Amino acid sequence: MTTAGGEAVPSFGTRLGETFASLGHLCVGIDPHPYLLERWGMPDTATGVREFGLRVVEATATRAGIVKPQVAFYERHGSAGFAALEDVLAAARAAGILVIADAKRGDLGTSVEAYGQAWLTPGSPLEADAMTVSGFQGVGSLEAPAQLAARTGKGLFVLAATSNPESVGIQTAVITRGELSGRSVSAGIVAGVNIWNRAPLGSIGVVIGATVALEDYGITGDDLASTPILAPGFGHQGVGFDALPSVYGTASKNVIVSSSRAILDAGPDGIAATIDAQARTLSEVFSA
Amino acid sequence: MTTAGGEAVPSFGTRLGETFASLGHLCVGIDPHPYLLERWGMPDTATGVREFGLRVVEATATRAGIVKPQVAFYERHGSAGFAALEDVLAAARAAGILVIADAKRGDLGTSVEAYGQAWLTPGSPLEADAMTVSGFQGVGSLEAPAQLAARTGKGLFVLAATSNPESVGIQTAVITRGELSGRSVSAGIVAGVNIWNRAPLGSIGVVIGATVALEDYGITGDDLASTPILAPGFGHQGVGFDALPSVYGTASKNVIVSSSRAILDAGPDGIAATIDAQARTLSEVFSA
Repeated sequence: MTTAGGEAVPSFGTRLGETFASLGHLCVGIDPHPYLLERWGMPDTATGVREFGLRVVEATATRAGIVKPQVAFYERHGSAGFAALEDVLAAARAAGILVIADAKRGDLGTSVEAYGQAWLTPGSPLEADAMTVSGFQGVGSLEAPAQLAARTGKGLFVLAATSNPESVGIQTAVITRGELSGRSVSAGIVAGVNIWNRAPLGSIGVVIGATVALEDYGITGDDLASTPILAPGFGHQGVGFDALPSVYGTASKNVIVSSSRAILDAGPDGIAATIDAQARTLSEVFSA
Repeated sequence: MTTAGGEAVPSFGTRLGETFASLGHLCVGIDPHPYLLERWGMPDTATGVREFGLRVVEATATRAGIVKPQVAFYERHGSAGFAALEDVLAAARAAGILVIADAKRGDLGTSVEAYGQAWLTPGSPLEADAMTVSGFQGVGSLEAPAQLAARTGKGLFVLAATSNPESVGIQTAVITRGELSGRSVSAGIVAGVNIWNRAPLGSIGVVIGATVALEDYGITGDDLASTPILAPGFGHQGVGFDALPSVYGTASKNVIVSSSRAILDAGPDGIAATIDAQARTLSEVFSA
C-alpha cells in the first residue's frame, strides 16, 4: 500500500522488528479489571477505564514499545467504553507505541471482513496496529482481514495454543481431513498462518501462551521461523521471562512478551518503575 | 434469579420455548452490510446502521419473535456504531422481541466474564437476551458467562459446526485427550454444552449451520435433545426451510431458523411481506 503522499507503508512485521530492536519485546497489557480500577483509585465506569488506559500508555511511552488493550473490559461499558478505548488507542499510537487490540474477533465472510475494517483501517475510530482473532471457523475464514492487513501495514494474531487448561482438548485435537491431516488443530493454524508470512518477520502472527509445551501440539520452532508470536501467560500465570528460550526455542526472537497484572498490580505510582524493571530483565534474557 | 420485586426471572430457554409457540422459529438477521445500506437508501455511517436496525425491528414486531444483529457491522463504525446498536437492542427488547447479539466473543478468565457482563447483565447498555460465543478456548472457558446467563435469565450460543467450508478441518478434528476422547471438536462442544441444559429446553445453545451434515461431526439428534440450536445458512446459503427435518432430525423442534439476506434483500418496502411469507413457510414445515 502507498499513502496519499505516495510512500510505501511499511508492513506490520517490519515495524514490529524495528520495535524489538529499539525498545525490546515487552508488551504492556491494558486490562482495566474492576479490582485494578479499585486499586488505582478509579471508578468502574467509562471514565475510569479511559483514565486507566491513558495512564498505562503514559507510563509505557519510551519504556516499552507495545501495548495490548483487552477490549472486553472496555466493551463492558458499552458505547461509552468504546469511546474511552478510542481515546486510549489514539494516545498510544500518537506516542509511537504499537497497539495490539486484544479483541479475539472471529466470524466468516463479510462479517469477519467488517471486524478487520473496524480495527485495521487507517482513520477508523478503533484503528489499532494489529488485532487478535479466532480461527475457530478456519484460518481460511480470516482471508479478508489478512489481505486488509497486508494492504494497510497492519497485523493479525490468530489464537493457536492458549494458556488456559480448558483449551487443551480442542487445541490438541487431530485434523483428519485435507492436507493438514494428522496435525493438531494448533499446528494446523500455525501452518495456515505461515502461508501469509515471509522472512525475516511476517505480519500475521499467532497467540501461543507461555504455559504451553509446543511439542504437545506438534509445533516446532521451525514452524514459527517468520511468524510473530504473541505470548500471554508470563508473570501472573507463573512463568518467568527466563523460561522464554525453553518454551519457544529458536522462535523466541519473534516473541512479544505480554505482561499485564504483574505490571498493573504496581498501581499508578509504581507502574513506570515496574515496566523499566521488566524491560531490563527481558533484555537480559534476549542478550544471554 | 429474582428481580428487585422478588419475582423469579424465567430462563432464556423457557422464554425461547414460549416464543416458538407464539411466533414460530424465524429469526430475522440485522446485517447492515454496506451493499444493503445502499439498497435501502441509507448512508454507510452510524446513523445509517441505526436507522437500518430500527426499521428491521419495526418490520419484525408481531411477525417474528427473534432478531439477530450482526455486531461486526456496528463495530465497523466504532463507538458511534455501538451507540446505534444500543438503540436497536433497546427497541427490539421494548417490542418484546428476543435479541441474540451475534458477537462471537470468546476469551478466558475475567476477560470472557467481562464479555458476558457487557451483553447479558440487566441494565447494561448493550443488554441482549442472548449472545453468540466461541468455545475455541474450551467450553469450560465459558463457565462464567454461562453462570451469569443462568442468574439473569439470559442465553449463550456456542459455535459448534459453522456453515463455511474453511471451518471443516478444525471442527471435524478428533479429540485425543480427556473424557471426550474420540469425538470431534464439534461433538465435544455439543457434549460440553449439554451439561448446562435441562429438558425441555436449556439456555445454553449451539450454533450449527444449515449446510452441515451432523453425521460428519458425529453429532446425533439425541445429543441436542434439550439444546437450543441457532441455525444460519438458510436462504442466502442455498438451503430451503423444508430441509430442516433432514438436517437436524429430532432436534428440529429446538432450531432457531436464522434468515438474513433473503429477508433484507427485499428492501424497506418489501421486508414486512417477506418476513410474513418466510414465517408462514416455516410454520408449514413445523406443522407438516
